[in-house]
Amino acid sequence: MNLSRPSVHPVEAPPFTDAVAVADDRPLLRMKDLQGMPGTLGGLVLRIFQLVFAVVSLFVMASTSDFPSVTAFRYLVAVVSLQSLWSLSLAVVDVYCLLVRRRLRNCRFVCLFTIGDGITSTLTFAAACSSAGITILIDPDLNKCHWNHRARFETATAMAFLSWFSVSPSFLLNFWSLASH
Amino acid sequence: MNLSRPSVHPVEAPPFTDAVAVADDRPLLRMKDLQGMPGTLGGLVLRIFQLVFAVVSLFVMASTSDFPSVTAFRYLVAVVSLQSLWSLSLAVVDVYCLLVRRRLRNCRFVCLFTIGDGITSTLTFAAACSSAGITILIDPDLNKCHWNHRARFETATAMAFLSWFSVSPSFLLNFWSLASH
Repeated sequence: MNLSRPSVHPVEAPPFTDAVAVADDRPLLRMKDLQGMPGTLGGLVLRIFQLVFAVVSLFVMASTSDFPSVTAFRYLVAVVSLQSLWSLSLAVVDVYCLLVRRRLRNCRFVCLFTIGDGITSTLTFAAACSSAGITILIDPDLNKCHWNHRARFETATAMAFLSWFSVSPSFLLNFWSLASH
Repeated sequence: MNLSRPSVHPVEAPPFTDAVAVADDRPLLRMKDLQGMPGTLGGLVLRIFQLVFAVVSLFVMASTSDFPSVTAFRYLVAVVSLQSLWSLSLAVVDVYCLLVRRRLRNCRFVCLFTIGDGITSTLTFAAACSSAGITILIDPDLNKCHWNHRARFETATAMAFLSWFSVSPSFLLNFWSLASH
């Protein structure tokens, strides 16, 4: 609040301050209300879920010997690695914000987080869908003669989907807070 | 503005009105500026692109004889049909809004359009990715012995991706205007 208050007419001060406070509190109230944004406990929980699902997907996929034979599986491994790094770094930011008891309200940071979440969630969803197309939606006759680790591929795909499910709320909430700034 | 103005001290009136006007004009200015929202020419162009790409994808995929043998291709056909119906109906709404020269600022409509765009864009992207996983990312040795219409499958997949590319701005702009309401 850099506006100077009208000190000449002290009678007028209350309505003036009220109007400005009401107008300025709206975005603040919205941002306070939404758990799941960066710097909140809900945001940290979302990040941990993303991280756990992405790491499990990565390890399950990497534990199979024949995943490099299919491009989609290699893509999935690359994408969930990126996703886990991104979620880990933002989880660290969330922990820091919770420790110093501050919210992240900087517009640049929120913009950066929104873009990053949008990119990683799109990539993860694309990887999960293409893997699902190969492991599940394809003709079973074609499938069973080729792969021995179908259950593991399906598990990795499901974990990538779950990781995407937990990235999407982060992205939408960040985008929401960016728009209501 | 239901707040009563301070008529007792007319000297104070201008700053008070200014503060409220500035605070209230922000969302209006934002909504005016963004082409691509429902009821604007940019929105209509986006809808037409979505519709054209989805319809082309549908016809290319349906023109192959062996698409029902793969679940992902049947899913793609179902999803691009839904996408084209959705885009067609919203294009009609846009044309109506342009003819009567009105913007859609009703919060319920914007909310409905946002949810619909979110669902259809997610479904289209999932269908495009799973088809891409089967047609492009899979091992070529496995591929060539099975399908005769690989070029058509790839075209249909690419068209579904383009349809998703043109749905995403609609979704993001609608979500933005919903958040900044």
